[in-house]
Amino acid sequence: MKATVAVRPKPGILDPQGEAVRGSLQHLGFDVTEARVGRIVELELEATDPAEAKAEVERMCEQLLANPLIETFQIEIAS
Amino acid sequence: MKATVAVRPKPGILDPQGEAVRGSLQHLGFDVTEARVGRIVELELEATDPAEAKAEVERMCEQLLANPLIETFQIEIAS
Repeated sequence: MKATVAVRPKPGILDPQGEAVRGSLQHLGFDVTEARVGRIVELELEATDPAEAKAEVERMCEQLLANPLIETFQIEIAS
Repeated sequence: MKATVAVRPKPGILDPQGEAVRGSLQHLGFDVTEARVGRIVELELEATDPAEAKAEVERMCEQLLANPLIETFQIEIAS
C-alpha cells in the first residue's frame, strides 16, 4: 500500500528556503511574489487496511516526518 | 494566481534522503519497505492567465526548481 505525505511550513512561520527560492526566481526575471518550500514523502507500506495505514503514517509524521511546531502534514493513502 | 510544483526523484535514481527516512522509520518499528523524498514548491504569481502561468512555472522548473536529469516535476495551477 502506498502513502504520500505532504509536509509544509505553517502559515506565518519563517521559511528561509522559500525566501531563497523567491529571491532566485525574481533574480531570473520571474514575477513571483511568494514561494514556500515543503517536502513530499512517498512510502510503500506493509499495511493492507487503508484506515490502519493512515493511522500508522500519522504516527510516523508525529515521530519523524514532520515537526508539528512549525509544519503541517497531509496524508493520502492509495492502494 | 497560485501554483504548486511537486518535484520528485526519478524512478531508479538513488535517493539518499529517502533511504535515510526508510532506515529511521524501520528503526522506530514501522513496516515501511520504501521511502522517496521530494519537494513541494508553492508559488504566488503575478500572471493572471492559467496557461501563461503554467508556461512560466515550467520555465522556472527547467531553470531553477528541478534538476531534469534526476528529477521529474508536476505543476498545478489554482486561481
